[in-house]
Amino acid sequence: MTDTTAYAPTDRTVPTRSRDRASYDRATVHAILDEGYVCHLGFVRDGAPVVLPTLYGRIGERLYVHGSTGSRPLRSAGRAEEGLPVCVTVTHVDGLVLARSAFHHSLNYRSVVIHGLARQVTDEAEKRAALDALVEQVVAGRAADSRPADAKELAATAVIALDLTEVSAKSRTGGPNDEPADLALPYWSGVVPLTYGRGAPIPSTDLDPAVPLPAYLAAGATER
Amino acid sequence: MTDTTAYAPTDRTVPTRSRDRASYDRATVHAILDEGYVCHLGFVRDGAPVVLPTLYGRIGERLYVHGSTGSRPLRSAGRAEEGLPVCVTVTHVDGLVLARSAFHHSLNYRSVVIHGLARQVTDEAEKRAALDALVEQVVAGRAADSRPADAKELAATAVIALDLTEVSAKSRTGGPNDEPADLALPYWSGVVPLTYGRGAPIPSTDLDPAVPLPAYLAAGATER
Repeated sequence: MTDTTAYAPTDRTVPTRSRDRASYDRATVHAILDEGYVCHLGFVRDGAPVVLPTLYGRIGERLYVHGSTGSRPLRSAGRAEEGLPVCVTVTHVDGLVLARSAFHHSLNYRSVVIHGLARQVTDEAEKRAALDALVEQVVAGRAADSRPADAKELAATAVIALDLTEVSAKSRTGGPNDEPADLALPYWSGVVPLTYGRGAPIPSTDLDPAVPLPAYLAAGATER
Repeated sequence: MTDTTAYAPTDRTVPTRSRDRASYDRATVHAILDEGYVCHLGFVRDGAPVVLPTLYGRIGERLYVHGSTGSRPLRSAGRAEEGLPVCVTVTHVDGLVLARSAFHHSLNYRSVVIHGLARQVTDEAEKRAALDALVEQVVAGRAADSRPADAKELAATAVIALDLTEVSAKSRTGGPNDEPADLALPYWSGVVPLTYGRGAPIPSTDLDPAVPLPAYLAAGATER
């Protein structure tokens, strides 16, 4: 019977080390993806890897990744009928793990790695939905509170779609794993949590002072 | 005459779009690298891209990237005599750029992309220096205040080295670039700056209470 709550592990989503840190649970993967908006998109050009940061948005079991029609990976995705082989990685760093030994220093983190074939989104309705998802991923509430793209802007924006099928999450939590023999050493050990926030919004210099700060920016000024 | 303050642009470090955002200035590249410690390492496996988050440290014009000897890219780098083609990308997101139009939404960011052939570090002295650099990159002052790796730990840690030769930085700063026709629209526009910090350090449950919090953790609790 198929486990519908989890992605099926594949040869390339089962890590060669720290297998206990890997998860294929859909809810876990979705939560990590939904907490971010910048991914690192990897593709192959002339046999060599290229990794670029870009925006993404999730709709169900599909990830939409943003780009310009002039950018290299998206032009390739447009040409390749079978889709462009990509790897999309999203990483959140939660804390610095300081052990007594240099060797056991680590990070607490959560990451998602997606492998697959990306296809260029050409359907106008799908592209609009994808772009809304991208904006919403950065600031929830913003897509409905801005001018939608016109036909020219829509044509100038490229979006690639990647199905969430070959996916894994990885995470580390908790304190350092020091060797028993090191516990008496005179070095501090523990975790330094990292914090992420939003500063006070800075209005554009040409903004009409009568336009108020929207509630979705005023309330809950936390990044994650 | 060679410009020693800048990296020489190459076909793959000159972007196909937003060329005005690109920089080859060494000081700019170093500053972006030195402000972070997590990179996204891309390599090619069976013709497909793989992107993994990992730690790095910079020593001069060389980047050292961390891994276990069991991990895939590092095993490949050990096998390949000519080195493993990699792309290492470091990204800092500084602010959310909200324009009146959905199309002109953007991020303020700084990123560095490095292309090159990575080689496995086998010399013991170089490996020790690299691991110190990795720890120092995360918490300055920590390498000298922890137990150094012993021979077994050193053997169990793999480090790859990548020369900073084919390198570019990219950045966006400032407010949204709205279309003149959109300026009168009733949508808020501006920048939401992002903040990064460190929370109060959490000591290990087995830490001797007599061990004080080191000055490098107490002072300046800012990430960047």
